[in-house]
Amino acid sequence: MKTLWKDLHAITMRDGRYNIIEDAAILTEDGLIIWIGKAHEVPDSDAQQISLNYWWVTPGLIDCHTHLVFAGSRSAEFEERLHGISYSEIAAKGGGIISTVNATRQATEQELLKLALKRIEFLMKDGVTAIEIKSGYGLDLNSERKILTVIQKLKTLLPITIKATCLAAHDIPIEYKNRSDEYIDYICDVMLPLFASENLIDAVDAFCEHIAFSPQQVEKVFRKAQKLNLPIKIHAEQLSSLHGSSLAAKYHGLSADHLEYMTEQDVIAMAQSDTVAVLLPGAFYMLREKQLPPIPSLRQHHVKIALSTDLNPGTSPMLSARLLLNMACTLFKMTPEEALAGVTINAAHALALNHQHGSLEQKKIANFVAWDITHPADLAYWLGGQIKNKIIVNGKILDVKEK
Amino acid sequence: MKTLWKDLHAITMRDGRYNIIEDAAILTEDGLIIWIGKAHEVPDSDAQQISLNYWWVTPGLIDCHTHLVFAGSRSAEFEERLHGISYSEIAAKGGGIISTVNATRQATEQELLKLALKRIEFLMKDGVTAIEIKSGYGLDLNSERKILTVIQKLKTLLPITIKATCLAAHDIPIEYKNRSDEYIDYICDVMLPLFASENLIDAVDAFCEHIAFSPQQVEKVFRKAQKLNLPIKIHAEQLSSLHGSSLAAKYHGLSADHLEYMTEQDVIAMAQSDTVAVLLPGAFYMLREKQLPPIPSLRQHHVKIALSTDLNPGTSPMLSARLLLNMACTLFKMTPEEALAGVTINAAHALALNHQHGSLEQKKIANFVAWDITHPADLAYWLGGQIKNKIIVNGKILDVKEK
Ligand SMILES: [Zn+2]
Ligand SMILES: [Zn+2]
Repeated sequence: MKTLWKDLHAITMRDGRYNIIEDAAILTEDGLIIWIGKAHEVPDSDAQQISLNYWWVTPGLIDCHTHLVFAGSRSAEFEERLHGISYSEIAAKGGGIISTVNATRQATEQELLKLALKRIEFLMKDGVTAIEIKSGYGLDLNSERKILTVIQKLKTLLPITIKATCLAAHDIPIEYKNRSDEYIDYICDVMLPLFASENLIDAVDAFCEHIAFSPQQVEKVFRKAQKLNLPIKIHAEQLSSLHGSSLAAKYHGLSADHLEYMTEQDVIAMAQSDTVAVLLPGAFYMLREKQLPPIPSLRQHHVKIALSTDLNPGTSPMLSARLLLNMACTLFKMTPEEALAGVTINAAHALALNHQHGSLEQKKIANFVAWDITHPADLAYWLGGQIKNKIIVNGKILDVKEK
Repeated sequence: MKTLWKDLHAITMRDGRYNIIEDAAILTEDGLIIWIGKAHEVPDSDAQQISLNYWWVTPGLIDCHTHLVFAGSRSAEFEERLHGISYSEIAAKGGGIISTVNATRQATEQELLKLALKRIEFLMKDGVTAIEIKSGYGLDLNSERKILTVIQKLKTLLPITIKATCLAAHDIPIEYKNRSDEYIDYICDVMLPLFASENLIDAVDAFCEHIAFSPQQVEKVFRKAQKLNLPIKIHAEQLSSLHGSSLAAKYHGLSADHLEYMTEQDVIAMAQSDTVAVLLPGAFYMLREKQLPPIPSLRQHHVKIALSTDLNPGTSPMLSARLLLNMACTLFKMTPEEALAGVTINAAHALALNHQHGSLEQKKIANFVAWDITHPADLAYWLGGQIKNKIIVNGKILDVKEK
């Protein structure tokens, strides 16, 4: 059954640019785009026709870095910090990431699923049709496995595309205090082989930072991932320069994420391995950081720049892709076109989904969003509110239920 | 007809603090709160009962500084500036505020009304039940009058409270280029008396800055407002220190707004006249400002701090009160409690609505919002998404239609 989507302007994002086709049409069949072009050049067909009111159509947005399966609340801690209570005081009384780990360990699969679904619904309303979700608030075999099982369930429940990443190397669990090497061994010897054998994970990530794991420890995780044929990602150079991004490049990583403190050598290494730079302006904003990621250098060396909400309870409780676009423009001085590439084609690259997602092109999956706007930059311009949209997933109009 | 709102926790904002009543009830009659207290102390009555699911109830939010009646779009300009095109180049080809003035002058009353209603709907969905709207994109008699007439219509069309402010002294219109003194005279001699006689305005505002009007010019406007018995407000110390805030204090202004560059003398002057400091983090954010308003000094001298979206197309296209709360906390390091006071009781003071609005207290108008949250700080914590709510205006549940 073919569908002809007509009366639209297409922002194709081919080659990472707007590459606009005004007065366009899209022909889809069996969930795929089989033709896109000028309306007056539509090939003959008996397709059913659906008008999109001359709205602007973008590829479905992709959120390529989230931690959205978690329990517990950190809003009281957010408040305490604004009353001047230090992070170490909060940590001392069980706050911080440990509180999220404890709450997530105690939560049932069903509870975690319900919480995750609600968060994903917000993202979907904002046009997101593919999401990467990391584990990392379990930090023990059963709890990490529980989170990954929830992500697995999300894959079957939702029409959008979900990718699961194991981030067991997110923090050192209390059981391994001062024994982080042993925890790394446990991840490599027990967790990763099990999760891989159960097909629970699509990639492996690690947090490379003084407050988490050293490059040597992370490299151990990467070597194991490589043996298991799993692609890698890294949280790197967020707070200091440990060259985790170069390490990710050495292992042909899909992406290195955060990157505020990366050096030009890191940029060159990532360019050579075609590792995507995933920037996370929500965390930058919430932590009131001053050091910007080296965007001019990334541009100069043609490193693909993706953007993501980093949705997590501690440093980026961000439930909106449009706000992400605005922050990339306002805080990182990216152009709206670069920002849109960051949540479409470049985000697809960061998840190895670029052959099927991220741009409006023949043979790609028919995931796209029609927006009631008058200029592509409107998506990045407005702060809050809603933009009327129609979301098409696998060639079908999605009905995102109102909460 | 009495209504008993039960199964709720009340964040009363009495005296500018949370002043929470857990397990509370609110009794309303003819649009007013006639009793609020602990659920087990409810006075006998035959009121109809409505359960609020043990959600948290705040006063209706108040957006005390907006420019939301305008036509045209500035998103293309937003994009151009991120491509490195300077503001003066944009202005030279008719961009900037002049483009908004031109589009607003050309728009019909009906068009302006429709655009304004859409923007207000977003704010209402976020719990806003009172809004101040300024003119200032007309800059000639007929166009300013057209904007004020639209605001008048909004007052009659909407159940929420609207206040109209004349900001004819927003910018120097092209017709008065290099003759700003003459424009000020025109405002004082023609515009203000007419608008006052037609009951179109509740207050008078002026933009005191090097790029707009001098303190001497603004004082002329204030003297005229005083003669017409209209309270005054000011846009001051946003980009430089001209002591417009002290000038507003001298005229017992309702508020001085922006205030990044105010001095301690200005703060003391405002404290003495009980002029509210209205801070606008959206504009601070969009312009990537570095200079923070002197919040510690405002606290020390007990100046009331209100917050507002500053909703306008050039520097703050912000359609969300919750994002405003987050920015006040994240960028200005205000506490969530201070931020909530900033959009409730202190914003009410900035509009001289404090006797009827801004807190959950006996005899005030029954405007309140029940939020599906577990902690008051949740309102400021999440970035984007939606929080389920029930909005009560004049004692009745509001049905904000979904766009
Ligand atoms: Zn992360
Ligand atoms: Zn303003």
